[in-house]
Amino acid sequence: MNITLKQAEKMIAAAKNKATAIDTKMNIAIVDAGANLIAFARMDGAWLGSLDISIKKAKTARFFDMNTGVIGELSQPGGSLYNIEHSNGGLITFPGGVPVIDDNGNVVGAIGVSGSSVENDHAVAEAGASAL
Amino acid sequence: MNITLKQAEKMIAAAKNKATAIDTKMNIAIVDAGANLIAFARMDGAWLGSLDISIKKAKTARFFDMNTGVIGELSQPGGSLYNIEHSNGGLITFPGGVPVIDDNGNVVGAIGVSGSSVENDHAVAEAGASAL
Amino acid sequence: MNITLKQAEKMIAAAKNKATAIDTKMNIAIVDAGANLIAFARMDGAWLGSLDISIKKAKTARFFDMNTGVIGELSQPGGSLYNIEHSNGGLITFPGGVPVIDDNGNVVGAIGVSGSSVENDHAVAEAGASAL
Amino acid sequence: MNITLKQAEKMIAAAKNKATAIDTKMNIAIVDAGANLIAFARMDGAWLGSLDISIKKAKTARFFDMNTGVIGELSQPGGSLYNIEHSNGGLITFPGGVPVIDDNGNVVGAIGVSGSSVENDHAVAEAGASAL
Repeated sequence: MNITLKQAEKMIAAAKNKATAIDTKMNIAIVDAGANLIAFARMDGAWLGSLDISIKKAKTARFFDMNTGVIGELSQPGGSLYNIEHSNGGLITFPGGVPVIDDNGNVVGAIGVSGSSVENDHAVAEAGASAL
Repeated sequence: MNITLKQAEKMIAAAKNKATAIDTKMNIAIVDAGANLIAFARMDGAWLGSLDISIKKAKTARFFDMNTGVIGELSQPGGSLYNIEHSNGGLITFPGGVPVIDDNGNVVGAIGVSGSSVENDHAVAEAGASAL
Repeated sequence: MNITLKQAEKMIAAAKNKATAIDTKMNIAIVDAGANLIAFARMDGAWLGSLDISIKKAKTARFFDMNTGVIGELSQPGGSLYNIEHSNGGLITFPGGVPVIDDNGNVVGAIGVSGSSVENDHAVAEAGASAL
Repeated sequence: MNITLKQAEKMIAAAKNKATAIDTKMNIAIVDAGANLIAFARMDGAWLGSLDISIKKAKTARFFDMNTGVIGELSQPGGSLYNIEHSNGGLITFPGGVPVIDDNGNVVGAIGVSGSSVENDHAVAEAGASAL
């Protein structure tokens, strides 16, 4: 019911490959079913401020079992979840966080990626999540 | 002048029944007149991130003695309470927090519910508050 | 691999019975395997400051899979874990936190109790943990 | 002047090997010259509370460019750095944090390890630091 370190490392390797393929430098974080960090990697030259963002994206994706960008659509001014980011010690609700689901449909953790455009961040997170 | 634990447990039971009736999984928090937690329950499979949100909703409702959604209408960009969520260690100002009022009209605490749409969250909070 | 809400409520009921039997008023917190709160109860008249302590005791017991008092013996001045309490947003390392272990020997969560002497806190936590 | 991700991963691999060789399960964190996380790994079954401690040990070692245990000797009651742990968002000053020094004698980062006795934590940190 949890991601193992071996699986987390495999996800990070796949995410790094994707990041390199699209010429970006990423921070990549993997959390388990309890939203606690299992593994993290910051690629050389990646934005320093994206360190915390990648971890918060992974936590946010597991907190609500959905892609972070979906929450961001609802947390805009006037939206039903406006300013939800003030909970849980700080959420990040733009794309780049993706839940990881096992063969039985259980959410077993999440991956968060930050370091480029949100489209690139999401693409790298998807590549990592798909590696499992 | 305060909700007892027995009353808080009755409110949680009513909220759980309502949550089950509408096929949702909720985090439910009850605070007293001092805005301090009395009782809390996280239903199996409920969103992990809603834990903190349910407590913040209960506190927010008691902090201002009104439904959380009412505050959210005033905290929008341009509104009179813009970004009030930055106070008190983080407020949640969308629906799901409801003050609890005794027979004499005194606010004796509040209930906060999170785990589904804000409409469902509010309905379950109302069911809990009405049980008193 | 996790405590259910039903089990958590059973643990809280057992802890409350024990607390009443020894004439104390307790804050009782149950966390799951991820150290996240499942259920909480503050008995009428229990110390307000024990609210946070009970939750921190439960988290501490799960963080290190041992009774909180064991850590406290090592965190004294001159001890090998001196000032470990500064980690994890604040630990509580005196007695009253007890891990909960399932039939297979897995730690599935923990209970934290605060509101009286540490001996009484521990006795009530044990009563709660044993109810599972 | 900084540890690369490749070097950090090499350090983590060496630390994991040492941890396995002495039959322990560790949290391992590597920070750069700016005391910011580069890489992290939590071995399966390692204490959850050691996650934060390993990161704080790595930061503490880089903050003062010395082994964490050396600071702990000075932070005891009556010592010259009594309660220094209150600074920097929380320090950990018992053994397990070791600065990483390049061939020119510059501190380029640090490693922090937590999950067993402080002697084991330090031995695994040394193994990681030596891998560079």
